Amino acid sequence: MVTVLKHGVTDEQIENLCKWFKTRGLDVHISKGHYQTIIGLIGDTKKIDTELLESLEIVETVKIISEPFKNANRKFHPDDTVIDVDGVKIGGGNFALIAGPCSVESEEQIIEVAEKVKAAGAHILRGGAFKPRTSPYDFQGLKEEGIKLLIKAKKVTGLPIITEIMNANHLDLFADVDIIQVGARNMQNFDLLKELGKTNKPILLKRGHANDLKEFLMSAEYIMAGGNERIILCERGIRTFEKYTRNTLDISAVPMLHELSHLPVVVDPSHSGGMARLVKPLSLSAAAAGADGLMIEVHNDPSHALCDGAQSLTPEQFKEVADKVKKIIEVTSK
Amino acid sequence: MVTVLKHGVTDEQIENLCKWFKTRGLDVHISKGHYQTIIGLIGDTKKIDTELLESLEIVETVKIISEPFKNANRKFHPDDTVIDVDGVKIGGGNFALIAGPCSVESEEQIIEVAEKVKAAGAHILRGGAFKPRTSPYDFQGLKEEGIKLLIKAKKVTGLPIITEIMNANHLDLFADVDIIQVGARNMQNFDLLKELGKTNKPILLKRGHANDLKEFLMSAEYIMAGGNERIILCERGIRTFEKYTRNTLDISAVPMLHELSHLPVVVDPSHSGGMARLVKPLSLSAAAAGADGLMIEVHNDPSHALCDGAQSLTPEQFKEVADKVKKIIEVTSK
Amino acid sequence: MVTVLKHGVTDEQIENLCKWFKTRGLDVHISKGHYQTIIGLIGDTKKIDTELLESLEIVETVKIISEPFKNANRKFHPDDTVIDVDGVKIGGGNFALIAGPCSVESEEQIIEVAEKVKAAGAHILRGGAFKPRTSPYDFQGLKEEGIKLLIKAKKVTGLPIITEIMNANHLDLFADVDIIQVGARNMQNFDLLKELGKTNKPILLKRGHANDLKEFLMSAEYIMAGGNERIILCERGIRTFEKYTRNTLDISAVPMLHELSHLPVVVDPSHSGGMARLVKPLSLSAAAAGADGLMIEVHNDPSHALCDGAQSLTPEQFKEVADKVKKIIEVTSK
Amino acid sequence: MVTVLKHGVTDEQIENLCKWFKTRGLDVHISKGHYQTIIGLIGDTKKIDTELLESLEIVETVKIISEPFKNANRKFHPDDTVIDVDGVKIGGGNFALIAGPCSVESEEQIIEVAEKVKAAGAHILRGGAFKPRTSPYDFQGLKEEGIKLLIKAKKVTGLPIITEIMNANHLDLFADVDIIQVGARNMQNFDLLKELGKTNKPILLKRGHANDLKEFLMSAEYIMAGGNERIILCERGIRTFEKYTRNTLDISAVPMLHELSHLPVVVDPSHSGGMARLVKPLSLSAAAAGADGLMIEVHNDPSHALCDGAQSLTPEQFKEVADKVKKIIEVTSK
Repeated sequence: MVTVLKHGVTDEQIENLCKWFKTRGLDVHISKGHYQTIIGLIGDTKKIDTELLESLEIVETVKIISEPFKNANRKFHPDDTVIDVDGVKIGGGNFALIAGPCSVESEEQIIEVAEKVKAAGAHILRGGAFKPRTSPYDFQGLKEEGIKLLIKAKKVTGLPIITEIMNANHLDLFADVDIIQVGARNMQNFDLLKELGKTNKPILLKRGHANDLKEFLMSAEYIMAGGNERIILCERGIRTFEKYTRNTLDISAVPMLHELSHLPVVVDPSHSGGMARLVKPLSLSAAAAGADGLMIEVHNDPSHALCDGAQSLTPEQFKEVADKVKKIIEVTSK
Repeated sequence: MVTVLKHGVTDEQIENLCKWFKTRGLDVHISKGHYQTIIGLIGDTKKIDTELLESLEIVETVKIISEPFKNANRKFHPDDTVIDVDGVKIGGGNFALIAGPCSVESEEQIIEVAEKVKAAGAHILRGGAFKPRTSPYDFQGLKEEGIKLLIKAKKVTGLPIITEIMNANHLDLFADVDIIQVGARNMQNFDLLKELGKTNKPILLKRGHANDLKEFLMSAEYIMAGGNERIILCERGIRTFEKYTRNTLDISAVPMLHELSHLPVVVDPSHSGGMARLVKPLSLSAAAAGADGLMIEVHNDPSHALCDGAQSLTPEQFKEVADKVKKIIEVTSK
Repeated sequence: MVTVLKHGVTDEQIENLCKWFKTRGLDVHISKGHYQTIIGLIGDTKKIDTELLESLEIVETVKIISEPFKNANRKFHPDDTVIDVDGVKIGGGNFALIAGPCSVESEEQIIEVAEKVKAAGAHILRGGAFKPRTSPYDFQGLKEEGIKLLIKAKKVTGLPIITEIMNANHLDLFADVDIIQVGARNMQNFDLLKELGKTNKPILLKRGHANDLKEFLMSAEYIMAGGNERIILCERGIRTFEKYTRNTLDISAVPMLHELSHLPVVVDPSHSGGMARLVKPLSLSAAAAGADGLMIEVHNDPSHALCDGAQSLTPEQFKEVADKVKKIIEVTSK
Repeated sequence: MVTVLKHGVTDEQIENLCKWFKTRGLDVHISKGHYQTIIGLIGDTKKIDTELLESLEIVETVKIISEPFKNANRKFHPDDTVIDVDGVKIGGGNFALIAGPCSVESEEQIIEVAEKVKAAGAHILRGGAFKPRTSPYDFQGLKEEGIKLLIKAKKVTGLPIITEIMNANHLDLFADVDIIQVGARNMQNFDLLKELGKTNKPILLKRGHANDLKEFLMSAEYIMAGGNERIILCERGIRTFEKYTRNTLDISAVPMLHELSHLPVVVDPSHSGGMARLVKPLSLSAAAAGADGLMIEVHNDPSHALCDGAQSLTPEQFKEVADKVKKIIEVTSK
């Protein structure tokens, strides 16, 4: 951490501040310039509240040098984390295709979709049971019943299942779910993150639509600080001024997250663009950028889906995407 | 709602689509142009899933005409809502000053601040007990103990109190709290909103840092749909590319929310700017723009605050702001 | 165009407004609903100033149905435009690699880079002569001398050249330049666009860092309206709240622009990320998303480049990217 | 400037880098930590290309400590700059009201508006002659003729005039114009800025719709570096995800620009909101936040304005705003 002092600060004031740093166990290095004095701080700077420091009258600005996330940081864990879900691996060179409907609607629907996406190459089945909807008047999911239907589809196809949690009180219902998803709107629902840190389930954490990569990794850190280190990061588009697409897929987040963290990074091309016809180009681009997996919405009958039909692929379209994605990975992994 | 069809759609396809609309109880008005055919729909268009409609092959785009919020909409409730909190009124020409520390830290601290902000003109006392923090390693608040201390400060000063809830499981602890605050990060924690809709407490709902006004009002709608109509909207800055300020106070949101909704609108100048020295100009500008109140962080000793000291005013600075704000309101209310 | 009237508008007011539309040669279709009356307009709605219309007291909102760009619109020109630059084709299945230094620095430098990028597979040589810099104190390019050196490099290697124009007064200097580049900051320098519309040179138009796709295509329209239809669109990253990367590459813009327009779309991965180590993943992702070309900064000695060295590849790194890109295109073009 | 080195850098590498800094005349202060080594640099760091430095393999990151603008920086010019335009003062406690139509349309129109805004309290007359329009098919202004009509209106009313320049080639036409306006889209048209730096006219520089405050001040710096120090900064709304308003007025920019710079700051509430009914609340809020002036669009007949009628006030509405603004200033200036 570096503290820049204002012009005109007295030697006594500098000395007092340095004493204050030293009582907090930090080493202090002073560089006096013509216009500014800079204090470099070495040690465990987490003990310093930087905003408090910035509020002092003699301080012009404070610059943070190290990232505040530890468990998620590649600096301290150079090797890729590989998440093993019932034999399906994600990360460290293992690419996972997650597919299924936005919402679980009925037993036939989820089993039909599960069988078709499996045949097309999917490794994991997704399906929404609890649905976060912007409007209270929209379909909110089959809830508990939806999870039971997912478990049936898992028995039939053998595919591990992933579904979203919206409330830590529902955790018991997720006992047979293989991966728990945290939605973008709950990325900073810290009470929920803490509860998930106490479980031993893999967590797929979606990036909030306006959260930067540091905040994203800090939310992973919340879960990891509780002892659960099996986190899959999911980029699903951010909010920008551009309105032709629902969100703007931040494709650069894939290599940047790989640089900052050892956790696997999956991309959701369905919510990023919000249109079925964008899913193929965005899937290929995510694979080419080095993503460790894709989470794609597939519906047996998109025009009658109860939610988000506009962005769902048919199983046939999904097959086409899956085939091309495999070829892209062959190119990039060599 | 207006549905625009693609160039080259056949009469039969148009007829089929119109039949489908009619079975949903809608009136249909067709305008055929050279390049495009437009179908106007009259009736309860909430029954139509617009994203599904957009996904149909013959549809180019769908334009929504009416806002999806009903209870919060001024169109159906022309008069301002006035919230009465233990005799303190907010909205409809009543301006409320809410002040207090970011975090409750101790009995002396909260009582000292409460007495000082009351003397300076505050109507309601704020204080954080449960604190949402980006980092799991930061101070998370005194929790239950913090609420007890707030209640003591209320007894001493008579000021109604407001504090933030992070988890519906904590609702019992809020029995003696006068206004429950929902933080920006929980604006779309729909399960929490639904639980608050079942209470009879006034709710101060903060706008998410990247949510537009429609989403903001839809979240108010979640609470109102449950039967609790006492909502105070709070603008607290949005996330933009600009980095000199922590957030960008969206001052236009004040008159726009008043136009769209009958609910009172309060501004938080402390979190908007993230710097104590911005609180005064932002407070005056919010009052001048027609806000129904301000929520300002005040600490007896900002440089030793456990959280957000950088943006806290001293009681003396708060008094200066409060006095000027009163004069601004005299100008604007005439 | 659709005009939505306010609740309570009288029949006479509606009639008057419809007369006004009819005098402008438009067909009018009225749909009266319980809460709202909607007027559909068919014909050449370009004659209507929509903001004026919205300002009328009886009008609630105006919805635009068709895009305001005509020459650039795929609706009226279904086939891909192919730009031929001295035998190098861009668009319609032809992929072009544009490479070279941010700034032309000396004869040896530009010829060395030109020869190396050619050997690595580049089709066109880029190099900055006039440099737009945020600070007046930064290196502003070799200007006229830079263009002369580019022309020398062209003679030696046979590669067509592209360089940026900042001022229409310099057009004479561009007589032997093959493609004229308009930088992001000049995307809405309309006087410059108009002058370029009078030339017969291919124009590579970069998207402004905060311009949406409609504005981008409207700027192409400015040039095309003058008679010059040889436009190459270039996505180079947009400005968002995320700060780990210099800009956010809007990868969805590639398929969206292809849908909206017939013009070729090239991606600049160097400015998008602002870091050499992001160029490879972003290049591969752009090729996978269907881009018609890439424009990549390559420098013989990045650590001594006079500008933007941080984002320049060495010729060896460029060769690696070029080889992988070719393989990606083989996958996607099948 | 502070350079942070990567973990594992050798002493020899550090020594070499420090030598390189010293050859550039900089003092070097090294702080070695457990995980990181930090090099503080004192002296004229403008000589260092920070992006180049960041690209070095041993460098993790570079932190800039001082702002790169000098002439515009309050640090080196503590007193407010006051711009005197023909006796009308702006800045340093002097508040200026600039009003007039978006476009000059005819002699009667501009003279009528000029007389009415003068009577209502305006100090300076605005009017567009050269109009930057997103679409090539929209009205582009009366150009030279428009300037002549403005000069006539000045003769009749005595009001100084301001109008926008789009092309340095037109400078001769601006000989009798009192303030030259640079529009938001030209804020980084550096060639234009350089030419304006050679004139002795006050320049009203509008902030680009997606430029941060540093870039804004760097553009002022471009003009000032040429010798013209009479710059008026104009905040006119930035581009965000919010779509209910055309732009988002960044009200915090007013106090922040006053802190960073000594130049006067004016607000344009008409373009910020894009709606006449937002002009009053935004004007009052700008005055309350400490702006040195307002630039407001006023038209004698907004519903027939050739451009931007939707955001124009009538002279009567302007009078009401002007009267309230005066009272707000009385409150804030005490």
